[in-house]
Order: sequence, then C-alpha cells, then structure tokens
Amino acid sequence: MKHPFSERELIAAIRGNVLEAGDDIVQGIGDDCAVFRQQGGQLALVTTDTLVDAVHFDSRWHPPRLLGRKAAAVNVSDIAAMGGSPRFALLSLAIPATLDRDWLDLLLSGFLSSLQEHSTMLIGGDTVKSGRDAMLSVTIIGGAAAETVCYRSGARVGDQVWVSGYIGEAAAGLHLCRQGVAVNEPRWERLLKAHLDPVPQVALGKVLAASGLVHAMMDISDGVATDLAHICAASGAGAEISADALPISEQTKEAAARFNRSARDWALTGGEDYQLLFTASPAAQADLERLVWQETGQTVRPIGRIVAGSGVVLRLDDKRLDITYQGYDHFR
Amino acid sequence: MKHPFSERELIAAIRGNVLEAGDDIVQGIGDDCAVFRQQGGQLALVTTDTLVDAVHFDSRWHPPRLLGRKAAAVNVSDIAAMGGSPRFALLSLAIPATLDRDWLDLLLSGFLSSLQEHSTMLIGGDTVKSGRDAMLSVTIIGGAAAETVCYRSGARVGDQVWVSGYIGEAAAGLHLCRQGVAVNEPRWERLLKAHLDPVPQVALGKVLAASGLVHAMMDISDGVATDLAHICAASGAGAEISADALPISEQTKEAAARFNRSARDWALTGGEDYQLLFTASPAAQADLERLVWQETGQTVRPIGRIVAGSGVVLRLDDKRLDITYQGYDHFR
Repeated sequence: MKHPFSERELIAAIRGNVLEAGDDIVQGIGDDCAVFRQQGGQLALVTTDTLVDAVHFDSRWHPPRLLGRKAAAVNVSDIAAMGGSPRFALLSLAIPATLDRDWLDLLLSGFLSSLQEHSTMLIGGDTVKSGRDAMLSVTIIGGAAAETVCYRSGARVGDQVWVSGYIGEAAAGLHLCRQGVAVNEPRWERLLKAHLDPVPQVALGKVLAASGLVHAMMDISDGVATDLAHICAASGAGAEISADALPISEQTKEAAARFNRSARDWALTGGEDYQLLFTASPAAQADLERLVWQETGQTVRPIGRIVAGSGVVLRLDDKRLDITYQGYDHFR
Repeated sequence: MKHPFSERELIAAIRGNVLEAGDDIVQGIGDDCAVFRQQGGQLALVTTDTLVDAVHFDSRWHPPRLLGRKAAAVNVSDIAAMGGSPRFALLSLAIPATLDRDWLDLLLSGFLSSLQEHSTMLIGGDTVKSGRDAMLSVTIIGGAAAETVCYRSGARVGDQVWVSGYIGEAAAGLHLCRQGVAVNEPRWERLLKAHLDPVPQVALGKVLAASGLVHAMMDISDGVATDLAHICAASGAGAEISADALPISEQTKEAAARFNRSARDWALTGGEDYQLLFTASPAAQADLERLVWQETGQTVRPIGRIVAGSGVVLRLDDKRLDITYQGYDHFR
C-alpha cells in the first residue's frame, strides 16, 4: 500500500493519463470549469450515475480496473439508449482516507480505458474524502442529431417490444460473485463479464435511432420488468411480454440450474444488462432484424407487445402475471 | 419522521417541483439522458462538486434548506468564476436508508430555490442508497461567449491581484458553528450566512469577464493561499500579497478576538468564501473599481501583485512568508 496522497497529487495523476485535448475542447481538467465547443445543429445529451461501494458494487471482489470500466460504461449506456455519441466525461470520486492508492490507480486506468474505447474525453471532476463509503459519480455529455434521438415516451399501442442480446446474464454473474465464485473462473466467463465489465451498446443505439423505425428506447439497467414499466408510463400505454420469448443464454440457464435459482427472474428483475429495450411497428420487423445484423452483427429479438392500458404483464403458460416495476429499488 | 420512500417516489417529488421546460430544453428529468439545445457561438462550461456529510458539511447543525442552497451555490460559483451563465443542473444524491424524509424535502427545496435565483433548471440526476455517508454531487452546465471566458492561466507578471468582498467570513462562520453557536444567532448573522448559505458571484463574474480587463480569474473555494497558488501554477508565475491589504470584515475580527483565533488565517486558508480572485493590469485599476461599482454595487480590492517565479508569498510587517497551497486538502 502506497502512502497517502494529496488531492493535488491525485488530480495530477489523473491529468497525466488523460488524452490530449481535441479541437472541440478548450479547457479540460485544471480550471473552475471545463470548457468545450457546442456542436451546431446537434442536441446535447447529459446523464449522471453514482456507484456506491457495498450497494452498487462490492470492492471485496470487483477488480478495481473493471469497476472503473463499469462506472464509465453504465453512463455511456445512457447515451447509447438515446441513440447518441458520448463526447465528454466528468468523474467525482469520494473515497475514504484509508483507501489503497494502487486500487485507485487501477480504477482510474479502467475508467479511462473505457472512455477511450468510446472516444470520450475526461474533462473534469472532483476528488473528495468520504467518511466510510467509496463512491464514484460519473457524468457523461454526448450529442445526437435532433431528428434521430429516441425517447422513452414514443411507444405506440401495437408496437413490438424488442431487446438486444441476452438478458439476465449480469444478474447471474452477480449471483456467482456473491457465492464466492472466482471472478476469473473460465466456466462462467460470459456471466462474470456481464456483471463485472458490461458493454454499452453505442453502435447499436445509433443504428436503431438513425433507422427511423424505433419509437421508444432505453437501456436495461433495473431489469426488463421495471424498465419496460418506465416506457409504458412515459408513453401512456401498457405492455405484455411472453416468458417463452425472453432471450436467456445457455450459460445463464446452467448457472440457474447449478445454484437453484430462476433464470427468468434474473432476466426480468435482475437488471444491469445494459442491453437496449425498444419498440417498433410490427411491419418493421424484417427490416430491423436485417439492418441490425448488417450494421452491427448483433441480434435483436421481439419479446412482446405494447397494449392499451398501463403496467407490464408477463404471459407465462396460461397465466398473466403483473410484473410492473418489479426489480431493484434503491430505497426499499 | 415520514416513512421510507421508494426511488420512484423521490424522483416524482423532485420532478413535481422543477420549473417547466423552456425553449432550450427538449427532455428534462425522466429519460436515460436529459436533452438540451446547444447555443450556437457560445462555449459550454461544465463543473461538478461533491459534498459529503461530516467532511464538507455537518448535518447535525447545517439546516437542510441552506445545505441544499449551498450545494447549488458552490457549483454556480465555478461558472461565475469563468464569467459564464449557469443553465442546467444535475443532482446526484447518495443517502443512507435511515435518512429523514423531511430533511431531504427541505434540502431539495433549498437546492431548487438557489437554482431558480440563478435561472438554472434541474434536468437530471440520480438517487442512490449509501452505506452510511450522505453525499450530494452536483453538476452545472453553463454557457459563455468564447471571447469573454476567463481562465486561471492568463495572469501576467506585473498584474495586480484582486479579491471581491470580504474573505475569511465563511471560515469564521464555520468556527462559530463548531463552537456550538446557534445558526440563527443575530450577533454573528453575517458570518453564519457566509458559511451556511454563500452567494455565488454570477453578476460580478460576468461584468469582470466582459470588461476585457481581467487576465485570470477563479473563485475562492480553498482559501486565497491555495487558490492564488493555482493561478500562479497555471500562469507560470508567482505572487506576493500584503497582509495589510486583505479585506477582513469587522465581524470577522470580532469573532477572531472573541474565540482567540487569527482572522488573517481564516482569510488566507479558510476557504469557502466563493468571492472572486482575479488579476488585471495596474493601469486598469480605476476603470475596474468604477465599472464594478456601477454595474453591481460591489467592492473589489487589490491585495498584491503577480511576480516572476512561482508560489505565493505573504508580506507581513517586514517578513516574507511562503504560504503556497496552505489551506484545506481533502487527503492530508
């Protein structure tokens, strides 16, 4: 463990690792504000998310480099969910005075590596001491052409509900970590990565938004049951999804069997998949599938429909279960 | 104490108190990102600051409404220090599950009242549970005309160093609170307000930046000794200030005498005054004083000079003391 460090040393270490300023940044880290050029004709997108140790992550087993990557990724995912491109990031760190400096260096290195993958520049932030909790608060600013931005509120009765990739993998990975499975266990690599080092769907979000086919979109952070309820509430409609249609990977099913859990519960209420959840007219189905495959090599699948009314219903065998807002709530 | 509340209830309560969207906001709270129009020809300014209970404030005696105001004000102050206008705010709240809902409502009401005074709209944020620490992380986005923005790096050898208002009042007020003085004690009203409910100098910052007379500017958050050292480091110069010239109010002197403390230490190293610290050519002195008085009714005073070299020296009687970076450091 290295010696304690001053706030200025920490800021200097961060500045030393930040990419050189580009044309659109006038002042990065090191003044009262960061200063950047606004992009004519584009809308600005801004999002913020806070991760707290022992609440949103567990520093006992989350490798700090991957935690840094995840702190960036979950915010980049919010930009992806509107169909935008991330541009700038701010990082606020609140850390106990006892924190290991090596841990912090790894966290920063991971954070910056994820930003770099998404062509996003760290332009500011804040480092403060906390009493006991370690906490990362990230803000990302992005841009998008006005005519392509996808909101939650655009779903229409009759729309198909779609998800990208597989859901429930992150919840399965979290369960494995909590059960003491090693974070580098090859057998569960896919699930562990889904929890520890999720990938935001920036390219897919841009393709979907630019297609003109998508009516409403968001990313899956709290689980389909809760996130689809947000789309329904914002759009003044309800939704019905089919248990049979949920895209659940073989590894997720294996882990559920091995640990005597429900893969379907992981998929519906686990959250943190950072896949995209969106709606589009059924007439667009073939075009959507082809476009996504051609442009990204990824797979998107319909899981249900937008219906008149409100709330989210799960069709399971011949039952209809109300699953509205089931999933993670920070205060319950 | 009210019952615990869900994350959605809390977000709904915040949304219900936010100003109606204006022309330049497309999507406020309630989607993956907030979305706003970029202002052609203007630079964007962005800043973030985190306040942690028992580190940056003390919830045992800081009235929650004033704490909410301060969380907004310290970020607005960073925009003021560049000569910009605040436009949008994001608020991340990390709060222990045991937190009193009334306390939180008062905090939010104070936060929004300060934003409203500065024509700033809350457009997003995040509410999460923390383990033990209550924490507020605020991001403010503002704008300024490119040709007027004032940076820390523009100070020139020979410049006069100026401060607005009085310094040391916030440190005096903090000391009074720590000594158990009631936060509404009329005798110390001015000092208590300086600590509990500071005023960001937005109008003054805009006048100074637009004057074309100011070479470098920042706000006083960590104390003149540290903040002037930042200007010196960014500008590749040093500074000498005169102890006799420090603007210390009568109430600050009275409090120092009453509690056997040094008013000068409060002024130099106390921080949190959120006054403006800036440099300008000595030839501009009369114009600056007249302009500031005419446009804002406020007083600015020269306290020293920018000199060749590095670091900050205090001239006290016939002594020259190195005070570079003395003041608050979060990690020492």
